[in-house]
Amino acid sequence: MHIIKYPPKSEWSRILKRPHLDVSQLNETVNEILSDVKSRGDEAVRHYEALFDQADLGDLTVSDEEIDEAMSMVSTDLKEALELAYHNISKFHESQLFHGKMVETAQGVVCWQKSVAIEKVGLYIPGGTAPLFSTVLMLATPAKIAGCKDIVLCTPPNHDGKIHPAILVAAHIAGVDRIFKAGGVQAIGAMAYGTQTIPKVYKIFGPGNQYVMAAKQQVSLHDVAIDMPAGPSEVCVIADEGSNAEFVAADLLSQAEHGSDSQVMLISTSDNLITEVRSQVERQLENLPRREIASDALKNSKFVLVHDMDEAMRLSNEYAPEHLILSTGNFEEMADKVVNAGSVFMGKWSCESAGDYASGTNHTLPTHQYALAYSGVNLDSYCRKITFQQLSENGVSSIGNAVVRMAEDEGLEAHAHAMRIRLKKVDDKKESIISPLNHKVRKG
Amino acid sequence: MHIIKYPPKSEWSRILKRPHLDVSQLNETVNEILSDVKSRGDEAVRHYEALFDQADLGDLTVSDEEIDEAMSMVSTDLKEALELAYHNISKFHESQLFHGKMVETAQGVVCWQKSVAIEKVGLYIPGGTAPLFSTVLMLATPAKIAGCKDIVLCTPPNHDGKIHPAILVAAHIAGVDRIFKAGGVQAIGAMAYGTQTIPKVYKIFGPGNQYVMAAKQQVSLHDVAIDMPAGPSEVCVIADEGSNAEFVAADLLSQAEHGSDSQVMLISTSDNLITEVRSQVERQLENLPRREIASDALKNSKFVLVHDMDEAMRLSNEYAPEHLILSTGNFEEMADKVVNAGSVFMGKWSCESAGDYASGTNHTLPTHQYALAYSGVNLDSYCRKITFQQLSENGVSSIGNAVVRMAEDEGLEAHAHAMRIRLKKVDDKKESIISPLNHKVRKG
Repeated sequence: MHIIKYPPKSEWSRILKRPHLDVSQLNETVNEILSDVKSRGDEAVRHYEALFDQADLGDLTVSDEEIDEAMSMVSTDLKEALELAYHNISKFHESQLFHGKMVETAQGVVCWQKSVAIEKVGLYIPGGTAPLFSTVLMLATPAKIAGCKDIVLCTPPNHDGKIHPAILVAAHIAGVDRIFKAGGVQAIGAMAYGTQTIPKVYKIFGPGNQYVMAAKQQVSLHDVAIDMPAGPSEVCVIADEGSNAEFVAADLLSQAEHGSDSQVMLISTSDNLITEVRSQVERQLENLPRREIASDALKNSKFVLVHDMDEAMRLSNEYAPEHLILSTGNFEEMADKVVNAGSVFMGKWSCESAGDYASGTNHTLPTHQYALAYSGVNLDSYCRKITFQQLSENGVSSIGNAVVRMAEDEGLEAHAHAMRIRLKKVDDKKESIISPLNHKVRKG
Repeated sequence: MHIIKYPPKSEWSRILKRPHLDVSQLNETVNEILSDVKSRGDEAVRHYEALFDQADLGDLTVSDEEIDEAMSMVSTDLKEALELAYHNISKFHESQLFHGKMVETAQGVVCWQKSVAIEKVGLYIPGGTAPLFSTVLMLATPAKIAGCKDIVLCTPPNHDGKIHPAILVAAHIAGVDRIFKAGGVQAIGAMAYGTQTIPKVYKIFGPGNQYVMAAKQQVSLHDVAIDMPAGPSEVCVIADEGSNAEFVAADLLSQAEHGSDSQVMLISTSDNLITEVRSQVERQLENLPRREIASDALKNSKFVLVHDMDEAMRLSNEYAPEHLILSTGNFEEMADKVVNAGSVFMGKWSCESAGDYASGTNHTLPTHQYALAYSGVNLDSYCRKITFQQLSENGVSSIGNAVVRMAEDEGLEAHAHAMRIRLKKVDDKKESIISPLNHKVRKG
């Protein structure tokens, strides 16, 4: 823990600096695996599964029997928890359904947006010691609500070629169409290029280790979209004199236990609170199974004492944290001033773990200051907004001359011509309507 | 022109294949310039401006005098056209302003999204023979509406160190804060890293040549977000027996004149129409100043005869064109079936040039089949949707146990603990409310 008291503005960027994140040194290895998967398909996936996951796989597809088996293995308690989380995530993401407005921008010119689901999406769920079934819910639920036609999921099997049952149950609850046994770079390659078994998708979502990150970055250059660039998880807690030190410490630790590279920051106007939180952290740390990881992360954590809440908010906005917990009395006032953050937790009852699992917000969020320019995963992430425009003859009259003029001045004569011949047609029609009248008048 | 009649489904992917787009061979040159700009700042920008644009620059900033001068140089006609286009683009993009809904996902758990503008955005406008002032309007107008605090624009100067006046006027109309004389890779580097004069931004928008594309791709790996990957412009026109062949030909040509790599496709149910359009294209081509470019592009164009409108739409959806013109009688019915496209033009009066300049939709759109997963530039492109969640004590009671259960099963004990201590506090409070009552009862 670094305790920093009243740092001048000139020190901020040094305090807020995250470790440099560069996975390019992995590119050679990653590109080798990717190109092997591209050319040999399933055979290559099996090869790397044997090599990296020590799994001897036949069919890469998870069978209905395996899903049934998983359903019977997972406790009722956990199933109920998953159902509750799924309900809340669904409810929040359903509220994000977009209905475009028709706008008449000029007489006879109507424009609108329509949100259309990406047809094929691929979800990646890492393996490792902790089965990230919560991420399955976070990624698959909005895909289903958006209306993606093909939702596939890749996740690495264990040595016996099996997927953790909780992952299969979560995928089943959220409506994943097909699940494949593939992890790491080979899984990303399979979804980017398609193999005999695993379909090519148009966008890949999900977390992973440095190799997975590098692979997602590589395939995103040409072949497929990705959710967002990734980095270590992070939290910033803003607390005041009245904050509950036990809660604050627990929130910092729940970030720290993610990994030794987790970013943990506390900003407070109260020196007392900082001292209290510090001793609470030490106390709670003792009982944590992942205390070594958490301790490592805490070594780089920063506890910053500031003059007032405005300064606290400015510092947080410059940091642009993935998670921001406003553990202060005036959290509503503070929330109005949030400019850069992934997800915000309002008040002392709103702990980060609520949002990690079951409040309904998505937990796939921009880290590493990407919150400056990226949103977390939300319903939009699974859709495209296609624009439509419809001109009537009136519309041609109302904007035609401007279009011709601009096209001419940009030196694009064919653009001008395409509008000019329409303008002429509209004018000719008007003439033909007017002329009989004229004729009549003259006759009269 | 390749005329392809009733191709079987198995032939589609060959017909729709775009040329392979790989700018990685430019990476060495691009990275060299980028790292030079990163380390030497303005000095490097000036160096490359002298080298590539033959411009000897002092101050990189466009002065107020230069803008005043431009205002006096641009004709009233063009200014009025720009104002009209600006009005329509504003009106459409204003209609996209987002108002998040508050959702109670579970008792005592309220979640919402808030759209917040990206603070600093950079717009790149290429130089060359045609001054792309329309792109200035398309990129700057929504940035202003979104509320971006810092909107900067880089564009290369001519040999005399001047910017085309129409670009300055468009930037002035749309409310760009600062304009800098910098083009190509050096401009992208300057906006990605910041120099003494040009500020670092969080997201870069805009088209460019292969070097600019490669540079945007490189800086997007670590330093800054970009609007979308780019490729040659493209149009797909769907026409039937009753379509106006002159209009259709003009629309195909207005795409073809963009560049010799432009992608042009016609899909029709009518052999006659295809023949007519073909001869119209030949006729109109003669009068085009950019006929060599257009001819080159047309060499790779495809005119595809299909059995019915359903097949036409399926083919178009598989192609995923940047621009889709529905020049058919039943265009409304067709529009409902559009799944993959950037922007759609409904009916014979809605030519692509309407949308390129002044209908109000954005003309910065996904090319090269990126429409499968990307939207065109729209108001969202300039914002992030930050999520908020607020739990009351009731909220802790309603989701707390599920959170604890899931955290435990994911092996994240600190996550579970952060919720457990809140659950306990809420329970203790309930007890303390109940116990005096109990006491009373007992007393009584």
